[in-house]
Amino acid sequence: MLHDLFTPSVQHALDLVGIFVFAISGALLAVRRNFDVFGMAVLAEITALGGGLLRDLVIGAVPPAAFTDLGYFSMPLVATALVFFLHPQVERIQNAVNVFDAAGLGLFCVTGTTKAYAYGLGLTSSVVLGLATAVGGGVLRDVLANEVPSLLRWDRDLYAVPALVGASIVALCIRFDALNALTSTLAVVTAFVLRLLAMRFHWRAPRAWNRRSAAEEGPEA
Amino acid sequence: MLHDLFTPSVQHALDLVGIFVFAISGALLAVRRNFDVFGMAVLAEITALGGGLLRDLVIGAVPPAAFTDLGYFSMPLVATALVFFLHPQVERIQNAVNVFDAAGLGLFCVTGTTKAYAYGLGLTSSVVLGLATAVGGGVLRDVLANEVPSLLRWDRDLYAVPALVGASIVALCIRFDALNALTSTLAVVTAFVLRLLAMRFHWRAPRAWNRRSAAEEGPEA
Amino acid sequence: MLHDLFTPSVQHALDLVGIFVFAISGALLAVRRNFDVFGMAVLAEITALGGGLLRDLVIGAVPPAAFTDLGYFSMPLVATALVFFLHPQVERIQNAVNVFDAAGLGLFCVTGTTKAYAYGLGLTSSVVLGLATAVGGGVLRDVLANEVPSLLRWDRDLYAVPALVGASIVALCIRFDALNALTSTLAVVTAFVLRLLAMRFHWRAPRAWNRRSAAEEGPEA
Repeated sequence: MLHDLFTPSVQHALDLVGIFVFAISGALLAVRRNFDVFGMAVLAEITALGGGLLRDLVIGAVPPAAFTDLGYFSMPLVATALVFFLHPQVERIQNAVNVFDAAGLGLFCVTGTTKAYAYGLGLTSSVVLGLATAVGGGVLRDVLANEVPSLLRWDRDLYAVPALVGASIVALCIRFDALNALTSTLAVVTAFVLRLLAMRFHWRAPRAWNRRSAAEEGPEA
Repeated sequence: MLHDLFTPSVQHALDLVGIFVFAISGALLAVRRNFDVFGMAVLAEITALGGGLLRDLVIGAVPPAAFTDLGYFSMPLVATALVFFLHPQVERIQNAVNVFDAAGLGLFCVTGTTKAYAYGLGLTSSVVLGLATAVGGGVLRDVLANEVPSLLRWDRDLYAVPALVGASIVALCIRFDALNALTSTLAVVTAFVLRLLAMRFHWRAPRAWNRRSAAEEGPEA
Repeated sequence: MLHDLFTPSVQHALDLVGIFVFAISGALLAVRRNFDVFGMAVLAEITALGGGLLRDLVIGAVPPAAFTDLGYFSMPLVATALVFFLHPQVERIQNAVNVFDAAGLGLFCVTGTTKAYAYGLGLTSSVVLGLATAVGGGVLRDVLANEVPSLLRWDRDLYAVPALVGASIVALCIRFDALNALTSTLAVVTAFVLRLLAMRFHWRAPRAWNRRSAAEEGPEA
């Protein structure tokens, strides 16, 4: 079946790693926002599982995977416990966390695109859902924490673009009937490396031209 | 079929216009919030397609139309490009944009109500979903931009009421077996004109009576 | 059928009471945030029905109950009218409202868990959805009002824990084949009393250990 790119156990292990590192980023934000331990768990769960949940609702895969696999549900609780007890140490290895987060981003954009296509969506829609799988959890995390989603802010290093590239590679491979474990891995690695480069060199996307007028209030702002 | 009020091509063209103008409002808000070009595209897509997406999830029409029609998906990208390159010019014609937005509002409240009814919901629920189709994208836009939804603010001209009136006219027509291209157009135009009048004369809805106590903190605010 | 714990009419009456008090809390927040009467109605509806709506989307029960039962839809409008005309009086009986809200919390965590299990989810997932049913509406309310969800804040009395305990009791009863009207009532009452005690004695959950570093900005905050 198309969805099983890797052997099921490898796929599952990779999913759990991605979920875990996304959950760490949710729990860390919860600490920064001064939430209690339950707030940390909620934010960790939603950051880790929110993107896949959105995808599954859209493609009609109910109940979503997040609710049928106890492992998916448990990893964010482990991440919460870790951050709860070892918060300063986890903060200190923020760079390592960012590397894992980039790996999760690469992985989820590929599995998200593949799953959406397996459920009958077109290639473009599958790419959009792959992107949504990868970045949706982080957007929900920021919305719940009452912050402007870091995905949308111009002063953050590129995050959506690496995922978009990874998802597009998958779509191209499907289009030319070349999707297999090797090309999937290539797509994951491409997104992963692009994100690492974006962080290393602070790649950013441009803002609208001639924004000066934005500072003035429009007549019906 | 009930859902095809107009000929399919007319319906589709009107949908695309509505999506386009809603997307413009999303892209403009993204510029005001200083988002980068990808943030603009995300906000444009969600503003334009979010209301219909919510409706389709609720009525079980998965995958939602937003993911099966490439035209729906492309219009917000066109709107993003336009705002990206011509932001001051688009701001300057804000009044024209508002008129188109009112047209989108009128159109979506009618098609939303009709589609919900076609999927077997009751008349009242269909009206609610028609309203949600028309205003849901704007609410998601404001939530993502970390602003109080302008739909909820008392200091904005009436927005939900025109859509509610349009949706209710459709429900009444269905109830009395009089829904056709003519009455549908009438409902669209009514909502459209009401919104224009609300903007022209700054119609606003009342707030709760005796709000003074709201300024004081309750015991368990 | 498992879902009918109580006689249908008793169940329905209890649901309406829970919806009503949740709607009151939404309408009161709308007044504090200075929304107009339509904003009040929107916030009341979403607070009261949002949790069940999320649950129904996840378990695939579409259209959700909120859209098939006119009573569910009407109660928030009654609550809105009440708060609109009698806002100071309702504020003054905030303590009574809190008691009813605790009752709604207890009720919804039990019915949410039971309904999720009836739709085929596992016990753990059912508990999570029971919790989501009970607290989801309040989270959506706070997100729409552009506030940090009170569920997540450490300086609020325990809210999720009583619901989690109630949902877990239901899951244990299902596991040991002991779910009936009596044990369900017991679960409702336990969650209700725990929430009352949490408010009375200001029970709070701990925050992460050694948070001091949270005050300093991380290298890539």
